[in-house]
Amino acid sequence: MRKLLHNEILKERLTIEEAQTAQKHPISILLHNIRSMYNVGSIFRTCDAGRCEELILCGYTPCPPRNEISKTSLGAVETVRWRYFKDTTDAIYYLRMENKKIFALEITDRKRYYTQIKSKDFPLVVILGNELVGIDQFILELCDDAIEIPMFGVKHSLNVSVAAGIVIFELVRLYRRFSFGEIW
Amino acid sequence: MRKLLHNEILKERLTIEEAQTAQKHPISILLHNIRSMYNVGSIFRTCDAGRCEELILCGYTPCPPRNEISKTSLGAVETVRWRYFKDTTDAIYYLRMENKKIFALEITDRKRYYTQIKSKDFPLVVILGNELVGIDQFILELCDDAIEIPMFGVKHSLNVSVAAGIVIFELVRLYRRFSFGEIW
Repeated sequence: MRKLLHNEILKERLTIEEAQTAQKHPISILLHNIRSMYNVGSIFRTCDAGRCEELILCGYTPCPPRNEISKTSLGAVETVRWRYFKDTTDAIYYLRMENKKIFALEITDRKRYYTQIKSKDFPLVVILGNELVGIDQFILELCDDAIEIPMFGVKHSLNVSVAAGIVIFELVRLYRRFSFGEIW
Repeated sequence: MRKLLHNEILKERLTIEEAQTAQKHPISILLHNIRSMYNVGSIFRTCDAGRCEELILCGYTPCPPRNEISKTSLGAVETVRWRYFKDTTDAIYYLRMENKKIFALEITDRKRYYTQIKSKDFPLVVILGNELVGIDQFILELCDDAIEIPMFGVKHSLNVSVAAGIVIFELVRLYRRFSFGEIW
């Protein structure tokens, strides 16, 4: 097997112009009080790769333009649509007006796995909470449901940008299966 | 729905003693010339969460004990088995002697998705390459196959610790389906 060359990989990717007009996957990510700019930048990069509809930054989550975000996003700040809401409650209100289902990625008594999203759940928003305390109970109560990633080790949770990647790529896979019959 | 309390979550997790004797998933991760200690720490944390067999650190990939690794791993350095090989070629030689299949996570002409791993491919090792240049062609030629994560945006690739998370959790899901009939 042969590693693809830089220009061969480029041909597989969208140009910035194509990315701006391409049909997005109806998957949005909401960051509630994320502290680290590196996590925000990394999630921008993953939202680009998953062609997500939108990244919603809330509370004290840092917003572009910030050098640390640009550096870890590798420029994805230019291709991913984003909005800022000071108040996560307001963000949820507007997203619901846009007919989106709201899911929290949090450890709750629901025990629904991130792989158990159905066709009727799209378009959707997944809320990711603060690195230390996660999503507050009052935010959780505004959500349609909670999903979680099963943990098989000692530690409570994953790094938030890693968790975002796992959920985004599973949702992209499910959406493309439901909508285009793609099986992978 | 209700967010679980700290002690309720603890009850769902393994203790350190249990983790050390628990049957691991036959999934190992090999890091080839990873530069960032934060990426290494984050991958330790994900290997704990996925109860991976082993993390193999090669080349100039930084090894524990390092404060930056401990910090991002949140202590998973204590629960995940790891080895260091200066030479990735040697590591592949020994892993193959242990009857493991060797997969590269790299963009190649193979175009096999990370979701297309079969029951007979376990036990396996996934090699993740350097943040900038990925996996060298001469390492690729020592592998049984290459897998890749499809990219739907402008950027070439994901952050290496995010990519590791996506692949590890899909492999855990597939392994548990093949071995225990778990469907999730």
